[in-house]
Amino acid sequence: MHYFRHGRIGPFVVREPLVLGHEPSGRIVDTGPGVDASRIGQRVSLEPGVPCRRCRYCHTGAYNLCPDIAFFATPPVDGAFAEYVVIADDFAHPVPEHVSDDAAALLEPLSVALWAHRKAGTGIGSRVLVAGAGPIGLLVAQVAAVQGAAEVLVSDPDPGRREAARDFGATAVRDPAADDLSGAGVDAFVDCSGAPPAVLAGLAAIAPGGRAVLVGMGADEMTLPVSALQGREITLTGTFRYAGTWPSAVRLAASGAVDLDRLVTGHVDLDHVGEALAPGPEQVKVVVRP
Amino acid sequence: MHYFRHGRIGPFVVREPLVLGHEPSGRIVDTGPGVDASRIGQRVSLEPGVPCRRCRYCHTGAYNLCPDIAFFATPPVDGAFAEYVVIADDFAHPVPEHVSDDAAALLEPLSVALWAHRKAGTGIGSRVLVAGAGPIGLLVAQVAAVQGAAEVLVSDPDPGRREAARDFGATAVRDPAADDLSGAGVDAFVDCSGAPPAVLAGLAAIAPGGRAVLVGMGADEMTLPVSALQGREITLTGTFRYAGTWPSAVRLAASGAVDLDRLVTGHVDLDHVGEALAPGPEQVKVVVRP
Amino acid sequence: MHYFRHGRIGPFVVREPLVLGHEPSGRIVDTGPGVDASRIGQRVSLEPGVPCRRCRYCHTGAYNLCPDIAFFATPPVDGAFAEYVVIADDFAHPVPEHVSDDAAALLEPLSVALWAHRKAGTGIGSRVLVAGAGPIGLLVAQVAAVQGAAEVLVSDPDPGRREAARDFGATAVRDPAADDLSGAGVDAFVDCSGAPPAVLAGLAAIAPGGRAVLVGMGADEMTLPVSALQGREITLTGTFRYAGTWPSAVRLAASGAVDLDRLVTGHVDLDHVGEALAPGPEQVKVVVRP
Amino acid sequence: MHYFRHGRIGPFVVREPLVLGHEPSGRIVDTGPGVDASRIGQRVSLEPGVPCRRCRYCHTGAYNLCPDIAFFATPPVDGAFAEYVVIADDFAHPVPEHVSDDAAALLEPLSVALWAHRKAGTGIGSRVLVAGAGPIGLLVAQVAAVQGAAEVLVSDPDPGRREAARDFGATAVRDPAADDLSGAGVDAFVDCSGAPPAVLAGLAAIAPGGRAVLVGMGADEMTLPVSALQGREITLTGTFRYAGTWPSAVRLAASGAVDLDRLVTGHVDLDHVGEALAPGPEQVKVVVRP
Repeated sequence: MHYFRHGRIGPFVVREPLVLGHEPSGRIVDTGPGVDASRIGQRVSLEPGVPCRRCRYCHTGAYNLCPDIAFFATPPVDGAFAEYVVIADDFAHPVPEHVSDDAAALLEPLSVALWAHRKAGTGIGSRVLVAGAGPIGLLVAQVAAVQGAAEVLVSDPDPGRREAARDFGATAVRDPAADDLSGAGVDAFVDCSGAPPAVLAGLAAIAPGGRAVLVGMGADEMTLPVSALQGREITLTGTFRYAGTWPSAVRLAASGAVDLDRLVTGHVDLDHVGEALAPGPEQVKVVVRP
Repeated sequence: MHYFRHGRIGPFVVREPLVLGHEPSGRIVDTGPGVDASRIGQRVSLEPGVPCRRCRYCHTGAYNLCPDIAFFATPPVDGAFAEYVVIADDFAHPVPEHVSDDAAALLEPLSVALWAHRKAGTGIGSRVLVAGAGPIGLLVAQVAAVQGAAEVLVSDPDPGRREAARDFGATAVRDPAADDLSGAGVDAFVDCSGAPPAVLAGLAAIAPGGRAVLVGMGADEMTLPVSALQGREITLTGTFRYAGTWPSAVRLAASGAVDLDRLVTGHVDLDHVGEALAPGPEQVKVVVRP
Repeated sequence: MHYFRHGRIGPFVVREPLVLGHEPSGRIVDTGPGVDASRIGQRVSLEPGVPCRRCRYCHTGAYNLCPDIAFFATPPVDGAFAEYVVIADDFAHPVPEHVSDDAAALLEPLSVALWAHRKAGTGIGSRVLVAGAGPIGLLVAQVAAVQGAAEVLVSDPDPGRREAARDFGATAVRDPAADDLSGAGVDAFVDCSGAPPAVLAGLAAIAPGGRAVLVGMGADEMTLPVSALQGREITLTGTFRYAGTWPSAVRLAASGAVDLDRLVTGHVDLDHVGEALAPGPEQVKVVVRP
Repeated sequence: MHYFRHGRIGPFVVREPLVLGHEPSGRIVDTGPGVDASRIGQRVSLEPGVPCRRCRYCHTGAYNLCPDIAFFATPPVDGAFAEYVVIADDFAHPVPEHVSDDAAALLEPLSVALWAHRKAGTGIGSRVLVAGAGPIGLLVAQVAAVQGAAEVLVSDPDPGRREAARDFGATAVRDPAADDLSGAGVDAFVDCSGAPPAVLAGLAAIAPGGRAVLVGMGADEMTLPVSALQGREITLTGTFRYAGTWPSAVRLAASGAVDLDRLVTGHVDLDHVGEALAPGPEQVKVVVRP
């Protein structure tokens, strides 16, 4: 959506026509040389970035930081709003039959949420604040709940989205315009809004020793309360995609622990992709079908 | 039970009469000097070991390893099968009214399970094998499920206990006499049996890079397949009590994420404590009431 | 020095007369009730903050975050520019005879440096950038070198301090006015300057996946390049004192691995403490003697 | 040496003629398709195992556990006692001119030592016990010292090897026949002997909460004091090769922090490889030259 609306995401700028789409699922129709041809027919969820496999980041399991990764819908690599795509076979992860096509596609945002929680160091008994109840925020809330978080606070200015958050694991919701989060004392804050006021409110909500993870993309710069971060030894980081999350994501979708189908509020065909990229306020996730 | 039956646990030997009981809950009836008297009347779960607060272990959050810890029902410190006990106030953790007395007592075995999982490095999407479906094994299984484990295998020779395991979060059960666990490929194995064959079977079930945590107390020595541990870089450790688990445990019981009351299959009064220490095969956990 | 010059450090404000000094060493002249009297005569380095020992932070080894810590020279607790001070005996750490009084005092800034490196995740083979070559920066550089860092870059605008850095383990020095650190690709950046331009230059020098630790105290707020932190998954945190560092610090001073005496460029007596708090440009560390 | 003497290492059995040698350095004489031809002439240290790059272990930075790794001198893959070998270019790590051919070859055992310390969780101020003062033990001791360990104890029954240990960073040496290590209270124990009595003595030397790492290969099984491991919460693991260590290893050799040349006590040519595989007692490391 960032490319569609703004033509760029940080340093990545769209200069030529670009096929969008980076959350693909499908069925293998053919295999290249060296790939097990018995995979033809297999249903798969595609991890949309294939790294170089040779740099220091690839060697150490941080392939999301590989400078030569070829990532769907990141210039100049075309994306997956297409009938057929080609990908390295180990990035086409098999999914069981009872996982729907929609859910198989949504393993991508689920991976974003899993990666955010790994950075946040959350787990059973954690108290978590999520800012922004869009698709990613809802999945971050759901993953928190699935992990056994003791508190899952979700903050969003929109009442409908706050209501949705309750369905996705929030134990309480907050309206940033009305509720003061300062001193909430959460162990982790995950920003999925990209909005500087939400980040500042979230930082104030973190208990000493806690962690903040910035997932939402917003301003290039923010003015942050560094002395407060120091005084409470808060750790701040951001996420850039994910690495090694698909095996867990597949298992979670297959076991039913995570419910991805409920995120899907509509479908369009390939000729109406624009609608998926400009969803109405009541939409959570619109899936494109060929 | 180890003291009751065998008169010792490893190096700890009962030489004088000893009051047993180390899983207490109750209500504060009086406070000592320097303690907030407004706590009188508060319902609490007691963490049964108070460390010295001054040694290197206490300074670094590993107070379970404090050599001077005074732990209920560990010679020569009397335990909690009594109408009144005295404890440092920060080890009397408040519980909300809707958490039952039974559940408040069972925060102790829940802490054992939480600590085991911390050592096991488990979390969302993990595949976990638990050997032994006694009270601790059932709680370890339940905590695995609450954490969003993708697979929770429970192995026990007793069919009734295997059936109970299904109610406590096991996604599958195994009979060690009939099922070969070798190559199951779990990320973590938690032994709650103390039985050497179960430990060996569990080690064979761990995927390369996985972890084994020995919670059950059994033989002082075991013959272990060290070259296999090396070749698969398996990490083996054990647990000794717990540290810093009560705040999470209280929150999990309060939120209902963990169900402790279902573990309780009976009650006895203080005059019949012996029955709680010699439960029948159908009993899981018998709680002593004054 | 912050209190002496500015009357405050962040939220801590000096409102009444305050004895300064928080880096003390000495000899035990008397013991209180319950303390081993055979310690009288022992040479000790004092860890200057005694926490409550009872809160969640104290229970988990993060006692530097204890809200009730009594810390020398932090309002309203008087400090150590005095002939005699009283402290809890476990915070009076014995030092061997061959560790000088000066070195025993400087275990405090050494602890700051050790804690910074723990937060920075550095170790053998790391590439480290340190901004600011004052006493703390020099110790951070020295600890990096002692840990086997492969590169220890030190940046400071002052040529004399850059020269000093070479004596304390820097493998190379940089003048922020002349040298562009962008793209240096260090694994960790430790700011000991508190200067926003140094922080920005340091962040630009960190390789993807690296860490930034803010030790120096400066502006309450800074404008930070959050999208760059996200895109490179940089982790930013700060330090607030230290916890559990003295045992290591004593061993490092005793073994000679760390050389603290070389930091000391002068001495004053208690009647001239003001000179220690306003050192000339050629001074590194002035020690107060009674 | 295990293959040469015993024809097997655990499950790996030599069934056909096998070229040995897995610690190679050299100069690139030609490049394959897709490789930067300007590398011809470059001096390199070869990391001797090339993994599949596609499995779950490769994806997560644990490529040493890749089941399809092709490792020099592991059946059926031939090794490096040869004039020319072929390897994937990212496993041919460039070394600066001032690093000798011998040192470039010995980056392999240095990697073993670095990996052992990573598993051991050692760092500045640690107290470390190393059992066995062969080449690997000496490097483990040296890495401990380079990391700023406060104590580096080395235990070996051979007086000459104990003497050598002092030259490689040991702060004290122990004769297992005469010295009781029990209660030494080290943070980490690294076994480089493979001898069960040394492992047992080492485990007894570990402080509560400490770690044991088994590097030496010996018996397939050992009888271990599991209740003691539990009671002190000791973590036991082994190492299987290494992953991602070469960049650090190269930097440490290049900076001179680690001295590898001193390990070399002799050279033989390719026609006398047998002598390198049957070194005399006074030999540490014999390097084969073409």
